[in-house]
Amino acid sequence: MQIEFLGTGAGSPGKFRNVSSLALRLLEERNSIWLFDAGEGTQHQILRTTIRPRKIDKIFITHLHGDHIFGLPGLLSSRSFQGGNEKLTIYGPKGIRNFVLTSLKVSETKLSYYIEFVEIENEGEIYSDDKFTVYARKLDHKIECFGYRIEEHDHQGELMVDKLREDQIPSGPVYGQLKAGKTVTLPDGRVINGHDYIGHAQKGRIIAILGDTRRTPNSSVLAENADVLVHESTFAKDEANLAHNYYHSTNMQAANIARDGHVGRLLLNHISARYTGKMALELEKQAKSIFPRTKVVKDFDLIDIPFDKERQTN
Amino acid sequence: MQIEFLGTGAGSPGKFRNVSSLALRLLEERNSIWLFDAGEGTQHQILRTTIRPRKIDKIFITHLHGDHIFGLPGLLSSRSFQGGNEKLTIYGPKGIRNFVLTSLKVSETKLSYYIEFVEIENEGEIYSDDKFTVYARKLDHKIECFGYRIEEHDHQGELMVDKLREDQIPSGPVYGQLKAGKTVTLPDGRVINGHDYIGHAQKGRIIAILGDTRRTPNSSVLAENADVLVHESTFAKDEANLAHNYYHSTNMQAANIARDGHVGRLLLNHISARYTGKMALELEKQAKSIFPRTKVVKDFDLIDIPFDKERQTN
Ligand SMILES: [Zn+2]
Ligand SMILES: [Zn+2]
Repeated sequence: MQIEFLGTGAGSPGKFRNVSSLALRLLEERNSIWLFDAGEGTQHQILRTTIRPRKIDKIFITHLHGDHIFGLPGLLSSRSFQGGNEKLTIYGPKGIRNFVLTSLKVSETKLSYYIEFVEIENEGEIYSDDKFTVYARKLDHKIECFGYRIEEHDHQGELMVDKLREDQIPSGPVYGQLKAGKTVTLPDGRVINGHDYIGHAQKGRIIAILGDTRRTPNSSVLAENADVLVHESTFAKDEANLAHNYYHSTNMQAANIARDGHVGRLLLNHISARYTGKMALELEKQAKSIFPRTKVVKDFDLIDIPFDKERQTN
Repeated sequence: MQIEFLGTGAGSPGKFRNVSSLALRLLEERNSIWLFDAGEGTQHQILRTTIRPRKIDKIFITHLHGDHIFGLPGLLSSRSFQGGNEKLTIYGPKGIRNFVLTSLKVSETKLSYYIEFVEIENEGEIYSDDKFTVYARKLDHKIECFGYRIEEHDHQGELMVDKLREDQIPSGPVYGQLKAGKTVTLPDGRVINGHDYIGHAQKGRIIAILGDTRRTPNSSVLAENADVLVHESTFAKDEANLAHNYYHSTNMQAANIARDGHVGRLLLNHISARYTGKMALELEKQAKSIFPRTKVVKDFDLIDIPFDKERQTN
């Protein structure tokens, strides 16, 4: 599981940062990729990565500002052109369906796959399968905006079949009992404890990906105990008033949420073009005074998310 | 007057060619820039040029396929963000207004300027001012598609005021008579012929910019005697059948139109990603066998359009 940042800028594309998009790479977990936002040029950025558009099976839109959605029609078209034919689901605020369908209709684009739209009405769980559950909550932006929390289910310890075979324990219903942690007696008289053949259980990872927002309690709800929190940082330390007026956050507000929520790592994105190279580092330095495991991300940064959040490095 | 190519590829963005857009730079002529088509990423391409979005006062859309329009909403937003406040006119097929207005509405984008939409219904003149007249004609594509012909009005010879002063001919109503080419007698007895004081007249330039199209008679009408013809070349010499089936043209078809229409220069764009570097040169070489003044253009090619079309070089 990795996060690959495709656009880390704010508002308009700049020479160094494209507008918003990031990919949650779940190739090992479910052989697919989930995209969060798709500003203009997202498909151009993807061309420079190893991501294949047909692997994208879910797109989560935080809000409908142009720098978060204007790349969607082109990406959907290219996914079709490149042979994608599996269903794609788009989650987002009411209006995303109208935007996508109008764009496809006007351009007479016929896709090779079906799009399911989920326009979010209520906060809470919006998706769940055997491995992941996704929650959405409203943030505080000028336009309706959602933050997402992706919870990986805890990994049960697996039955160590190789070890069972090695110890010449024949397969059969007894495997089910051992997997349930029971102690069984074999026909040959051996007494076997299931726990000796169950692998290490692992807590699932939690990723919180927030959209544009002012400081708001829901950010903390989404971020609580997350392994990784992706938070906007449109403004700097001394600009809390500006941030409030423009419905955005400062780096310090993001760092406070990360610290109070005991997150593993804070990734700051949505960086204004006013903050060029060195100044972006200053944003990071300021935030680190509150929450040391902070990083200001750049386009194409690829961040690994290990199981043990304590092992995360900067 | 120059043409600057912003995207010369076909269908989807590639690593080397972006989707369709070109700028007709009329900075000397009318201190503005006219854009033809705006595929996704056009504003990103513009960032790498000297073009300022607020100088763009007209956008002509050939047709509504995504690779020609999906960059429009983002470009319009950035033009506003960068302080453009003068009216912008968008010409194109019916539907362009709905696409733009839906995109702006859904994203709650408020522009700092007024957009006038001209959805073209009838072929013929669509715009005229004291310097240029623009004509549109229908081409033959899968979707309604227009080609544009921009005619610069002939330059009347200017009255050479400096020379008049040098010869100590006092200003007054006599200047008007001289400008009209008359012969006048001055108070001091000198007889002056107006033609000696009128500069060189110049024929206006003609630029034909075609959208995606099959071979069709209207292409020749638009191209007739043009100084520059911009024509798509999605397919190569041996692919006339494919070109027909996909509503596109071959390089040879374009070259024939250029030759028969006595154009100054043929610029081939809308090059398929199947034609990489060397193969694109082969497209050019093939077309040159019919019309030698042919060039396959690349993104960021800047083509000057001099007054005397015979002086154009390749
Ligand atoms: Zn926003
Ligand atoms: Zn087309």
